[in-house]
Amino acid sequence: MKLRDLAARLRCRLEGDGDIEIERVTGIERAGKGDLTFVANPKYHSQITSTRASAVIVADNARCGGAQAALLRVEDPYLALAKAIRLLVHQAPPPVGVDPASSVAPDATIGANVSIGPFVSIGSGASIGSRSVIYPNVVIGPGAELGDDCVVHSHVSIRERVRIGSRVVLQDGAVVGSDGFGFATEPDGTHVKIPQHADVIVEDDVEIGANATIDRPAVGETRIGAGTKIDNLVQIAHGVSIGRRVRLAAQVGIAGSTIVEDDVVLAGQVGVAGHLRLGRGMKATAQTGIPNSVAEGELVSGYPAIGNREWLKSSAVFRQLPTLKKRVAALEQRIVELEEKLAACRISPDR
Amino acid sequence: MKLRDLAARLRCRLEGDGDIEIERVTGIERAGKGDLTFVANPKYHSQITSTRASAVIVADNARCGGAQAALLRVEDPYLALAKAIRLLVHQAPPPVGVDPASSVAPDATIGANVSIGPFVSIGSGASIGSRSVIYPNVVIGPGAELGDDCVVHSHVSIRERVRIGSRVVLQDGAVVGSDGFGFATEPDGTHVKIPQHADVIVEDDVEIGANATIDRPAVGETRIGAGTKIDNLVQIAHGVSIGRRVRLAAQVGIAGSTIVEDDVVLAGQVGVAGHLRLGRGMKATAQTGIPNSVAEGELVSGYPAIGNREWLKSSAVFRQLPTLKKRVAALEQRIVELEEKLAACRISPDR
Amino acid sequence: MKLRDLAARLRCRLEGDGDIEIERVTGIERAGKGDLTFVANPKYHSQITSTRASAVIVADNARCGGAQAALLRVEDPYLALAKAIRLLVHQAPPPVGVDPASSVAPDATIGANVSIGPFVSIGSGASIGSRSVIYPNVVIGPGAELGDDCVVHSHVSIRERVRIGSRVVLQDGAVVGSDGFGFATEPDGTHVKIPQHADVIVEDDVEIGANATIDRPAVGETRIGAGTKIDNLVQIAHGVSIGRRVRLAAQVGIAGSTIVEDDVVLAGQVGVAGHLRLGRGMKATAQTGIPNSVAEGELVSGYPAIGNREWLKSSAVFRQLPTLKKRVAALEQRIVELEEKLAACRISPDR
Repeated sequence: MKLRDLAARLRCRLEGDGDIEIERVTGIERAGKGDLTFVANPKYHSQITSTRASAVIVADNARCGGAQAALLRVEDPYLALAKAIRLLVHQAPPPVGVDPASSVAPDATIGANVSIGPFVSIGSGASIGSRSVIYPNVVIGPGAELGDDCVVHSHVSIRERVRIGSRVVLQDGAVVGSDGFGFATEPDGTHVKIPQHADVIVEDDVEIGANATIDRPAVGETRIGAGTKIDNLVQIAHGVSIGRRVRLAAQVGIAGSTIVEDDVVLAGQVGVAGHLRLGRGMKATAQTGIPNSVAEGELVSGYPAIGNREWLKSSAVFRQLPTLKKRVAALEQRIVELEEKLAACRISPDR
Repeated sequence: MKLRDLAARLRCRLEGDGDIEIERVTGIERAGKGDLTFVANPKYHSQITSTRASAVIVADNARCGGAQAALLRVEDPYLALAKAIRLLVHQAPPPVGVDPASSVAPDATIGANVSIGPFVSIGSGASIGSRSVIYPNVVIGPGAELGDDCVVHSHVSIRERVRIGSRVVLQDGAVVGSDGFGFATEPDGTHVKIPQHADVIVEDDVEIGANATIDRPAVGETRIGAGTKIDNLVQIAHGVSIGRRVRLAAQVGIAGSTIVEDDVVLAGQVGVAGHLRLGRGMKATAQTGIPNSVAEGELVSGYPAIGNREWLKSSAVFRQLPTLKKRVAALEQRIVELEEKLAACRISPDR
Repeated sequence: MKLRDLAARLRCRLEGDGDIEIERVTGIERAGKGDLTFVANPKYHSQITSTRASAVIVADNARCGGAQAALLRVEDPYLALAKAIRLLVHQAPPPVGVDPASSVAPDATIGANVSIGPFVSIGSGASIGSRSVIYPNVVIGPGAELGDDCVVHSHVSIRERVRIGSRVVLQDGAVVGSDGFGFATEPDGTHVKIPQHADVIVEDDVEIGANATIDRPAVGETRIGAGTKIDNLVQIAHGVSIGRRVRLAAQVGIAGSTIVEDDVVLAGQVGVAGHLRLGRGMKATAQTGIPNSVAEGELVSGYPAIGNREWLKSSAVFRQLPTLKKRVAALEQRIVELEEKLAACRISPDR
């Protein structure tokens, strides 16, 4: 595709030769002739001048003095990249049809133009929407519902009666609807399983990462709101309610019955206790441990979580604690000396 | 079921109309006519008066002034809930029999009334106890043993020669018996695999969560004691010995050869170093990092773990560290001023 | 095997009766007649005198006064153990051949003497090297390449076009090549998926743990260097580059585009932010959170990570914070008293 046409379709401002033919999208370090690349993180701006790519998507205000490559300027380079890859990278979808080596219950409902791979098991009464792609070795339990245009990668478990919307992407090995960790304890210490039979709902446009786990509650529901994106190895416990457009990075864990409101962002390895409310748009930095509810819009850090600014300041002093302790000891010594001196000094009150 | 009969079977004290017909168990917010719900966490006590449920299981001493619903009072509402769900929720088990699309070794031993789903692989010499349910796409390795009345959800891997007791529940994607992370390092830095061929034993009444991993050691054994419950995405390294009735919440990790005694409780994302002993009944709050052995009955927190009370106090001061540092600096300034004053002051020793 | 012969093959110095017949390798506590055991960790040295094993592999300089067992002395007992297990434990590999209940694309290339279990799916154009073992229910995507002598355990997902070297071991449920967590956000808050179609390369002699996840980037590559060992439930994000002989313990998470140089060691549950460089041979203790690049050879700890020594000292003071705060308050009180005394004291300047 000519760079001029690409710029138009990506709604970028073109600086350079519009006649260049773009063939691929590549990382900036390995890019060469015919390659489009991008810089979204200012940390990598210096590479714009050195890349051998034919064109680079950059931010409107990025300084690119001395760049050899043509530039495609746009407000959000990352968004333009997403569109560029869609235009330039063509990945053949798996063939439409039901593989004969699958096991589909006779009373399951299979939509039009679905692709179902080998060793897929679809239980009684389950339904699969149109154009959905089910990769090999997926298990979909009895009564589960999957909407249109979903992509379910290998080894995903969708348990009985789970309801999944349209355009949902499940990465390999994700589990949706496993039993929540609910046990009551008898007086003798024996843990009695509380059957976890209630609802699990995954709304439209959700993505769930590889080997992530979403548990089913005993009563009520576990819900993942529309447009939410969940990374690999995340744990969502029973009865958790996740809002819309939430982003949960890898290895986050959210304990039971917590409510996560819209547009929340939790960075990697964050842990959230049960029965809390994380207010709309709040954010937590990586490894934060959240024992209490957090108000709308706040940015928290640390373990236990406090305001990010406060945490940064306290963490800076943490490094100096041995010095601070010495300073206190020195003060104690000096004050003893002063006290002794003053005791020796005759007090002569003002006359 | 009439509420009167339900109360009798759950051994609850009934307050209200025993003739009410109970049909379902539901979460308190969505409950309506015919629904039984529960409140175990005092945080939600206020909802008892507003729920539209027909009946609520509550603690003996819960204040429920103005409640419209009938009450079922009991010492442990969570335990009563477990029983109520068993009475009221009927989930059909998968059909008994071996799916023709499974692969069962001719010399495997399959108990009576077992259910084996499609794409299940059972290796040579393996044995499956009576009434156990093996969901689709499970792999059971050669020589592995599984007791009676087990439930093995989809995509579980039970590796070669693993021994699993009766009434064990394995959630989807759990792995039991993967090779421990054991490497010796040659002088040139090459890591040489130490073959991990020894025993893995899971005793009766254990539950293991989705995508959790239990490793096999080179020598000795990895053991999970009877009645222990392990949540999703937990890592148990090679040679770890877990006692009875232990509870490990999601994303806990326990390093090699550590001994966890009976009735220990580790909250989410706790990490435990190798070669330690966690004493009977000790507990750790979420995200605790445990580098040393912990005595019986202790409650620890923090990273590195200290007593919970001590940690709470230190954490409170942590937030004030910038202020504390300023206070020390102010003291230093004031003491300098005092020292200067005193130096200027003629010392008149007591005469 | 006679102990004398074993000593020779393990290049150990024999102390004791070389005619002893060794039949098994066992843990030191359960060992008996005919058993070889080992002590690598000095913590367990005291068990050398009490074990009933016939022989013990110990370090050159280990004190073993009063030991009943014969001793095999060697510089690195763990390395000798690895070799001993290879000599003494014989585990039959699964039979060579392609199980008829697998689904192998007609244009896939299958090497000599390969073992492919039931319910394995191998996509179009994929290739499997000689003598590789593919356990049941593995999925290998179209165009993926796997070298010689690999071992791929059950439920592993190797996604489309992933390239894996020789002698690579993948534990059960590991996912290689899942879509990276890449989304651009529209002005209205909608997250738009950035297609993740670029390369994933796993070099020779790598081991990847159970249910670990290795993501694919949008552009560039994710690479795991030769000889690197990755434990269970580890997350490697898109575009990460891991060097050679790196060791990543369980539940480590590494965010996007970070570069991990050769011989790095990260202990359990360590988290590393994106776009960093971890210098050659650096190490981090368990649960460390790394927000910035780390220089070659450093040992870091804490959250946020600082030098290990510094962190140990600061952590020691952390425990004393309530006391330190009281000491500061006491100083403030004493200084007020001094100031009052001094104010009352007539200043008589030096005459």
